[in-house]
Amino acid sequence: MLPVEKITSLQNPRVKQLVRLRERRARDEAGLFLVEGYREVRRALEKGVRLHELYYAPEWFLGENEPALIGQAKQAGAQLFELSRDAFAKCAYRDRPDGLLAVAPQWKHTLAGLKLATPPFLLVVESIEKPGNLGTILRSADAAGVDAVILCDAVTDIFNPNVVRSSTGVLFSVPVVVADSAGVHAWLKEQGVRIVATTPDTPQCYTQADLRGPLALVMGSEQYGLSDFWLKESDLAVRIPMAGQADSLNVALATIITLFEAVRQRV
Amino acid sequence: MLPVEKITSLQNPRVKQLVRLRERRARDEAGLFLVEGYREVRRALEKGVRLHELYYAPEWFLGENEPALIGQAKQAGAQLFELSRDAFAKCAYRDRPDGLLAVAPQWKHTLAGLKLATPPFLLVVESIEKPGNLGTILRSADAAGVDAVILCDAVTDIFNPNVVRSSTGVLFSVPVVVADSAGVHAWLKEQGVRIVATTPDTPQCYTQADLRGPLALVMGSEQYGLSDFWLKESDLAVRIPMAGQADSLNVALATIITLFEAVRQRV
Repeated sequence: MLPVEKITSLQNPRVKQLVRLRERRARDEAGLFLVEGYREVRRALEKGVRLHELYYAPEWFLGENEPALIGQAKQAGAQLFELSRDAFAKCAYRDRPDGLLAVAPQWKHTLAGLKLATPPFLLVVESIEKPGNLGTILRSADAAGVDAVILCDAVTDIFNPNVVRSSTGVLFSVPVVVADSAGVHAWLKEQGVRIVATTPDTPQCYTQADLRGPLALVMGSEQYGLSDFWLKESDLAVRIPMAGQADSLNVALATIITLFEAVRQRV
Repeated sequence: MLPVEKITSLQNPRVKQLVRLRERRARDEAGLFLVEGYREVRRALEKGVRLHELYYAPEWFLGENEPALIGQAKQAGAQLFELSRDAFAKCAYRDRPDGLLAVAPQWKHTLAGLKLATPPFLLVVESIEKPGNLGTILRSADAAGVDAVILCDAVTDIFNPNVVRSSTGVLFSVPVVVADSAGVHAWLKEQGVRIVATTPDTPQCYTQADLRGPLALVMGSEQYGLSDFWLKESDLAVRIPMAGQADSLNVALATIITLFEAVRQRV
């Protein structure tokens, strides 16, 4: 067994590559992304994500379970590197690093490759910008048990470190497809899926609409709401009646409310 | 009219006090809190919050509407101070300041002082720690139209700068009462309010429970869930059935799902 390479230089090419992987362009070029933190690395392993590399720095460990997790990663095929305190601090994306940072290959789901339930239950989201919202939407979709999340005209990539974190590992299990709106619409029609869009500008209350059967819920972007394309191409538009100030519900909160009403009706 | 005092020294006592107000102890001692950012200051003024002081630094302004807002604050009785770029940077709590920071007096709602609807609709939350969760809960409560949010055994104070921010101004309008659990329980009983607690450890699905009539929904803390006290003292416990991984729904997401199911039933 080869001994684990120890990296102390901040100029080490691997350290530099880890820093570069925070940027989308570098991630996409390399086809890789970062999985930082004990919980995230553990979830990735649980969900069968094939970690290429695991970087660890014992000086940053917060608990006692890290060596066991490192052992699991190694067994699953990850190449191990030990980092000095300073080298890890340079690579870490988080404010409070916990000494674990993995590199994993990106994946790509396609519409054609999705396995749909009978009847299908899909969430379509347009152009979400904030990684935290995307993470919350993925968690909500997981909890609601959708077949897949379809991101139309994606602005923030799903392998953004903040999406990885805020999705609490759901990214590793819920199928996410990135596609353009026209293609998604054509595919939904082919599958015979009813398209229900959520917008404030419609009289129909979401709880009064029939959300059973083959369903794709469509949510707009944070800043612009639903695009004209989806407003026009949806089979039904629904709104969430609100008390209080107009912007209390952001897109992530509106998504979870609508998803769980659909779940209630679909039982 | 007195000219506006201009502060450039980082050692200015007002600058030091603004920095101190980030800490809970200083906030509570002074009975004051910080309202930072254009949107938040505007919301505070809209909701009639009496700003004591408004600090502004034109070098940080992002738009063109700041002078008008400063004028409004002045008219509403706020004392104005202009800060240099560096002095403002020292006071600003945010990573990307926008040149506006106000000081407002804290307020205190009491159970006895609450105005309840007929029938009452209340949200009770135990020991929330993360300001972001508390902000989301307040927004959800506002959108759902509850009479008040009652924080039991509060860990994070509602005047924490991150709560002010993440509540998007809802803090300025939704009545929030901070109280101990035993007192809240006794008061709810006096008012004839039914107590429905949310917990994963119960067979009853939240959509099958009757959430109409006088209602207090009780949610547990992030880390420990519902306390034994509330589990024991509630009239009914309900759970949210979940697909996917066990922790996809945090307390803020569970709160909004339950609140909007109650709203649906109460129409």
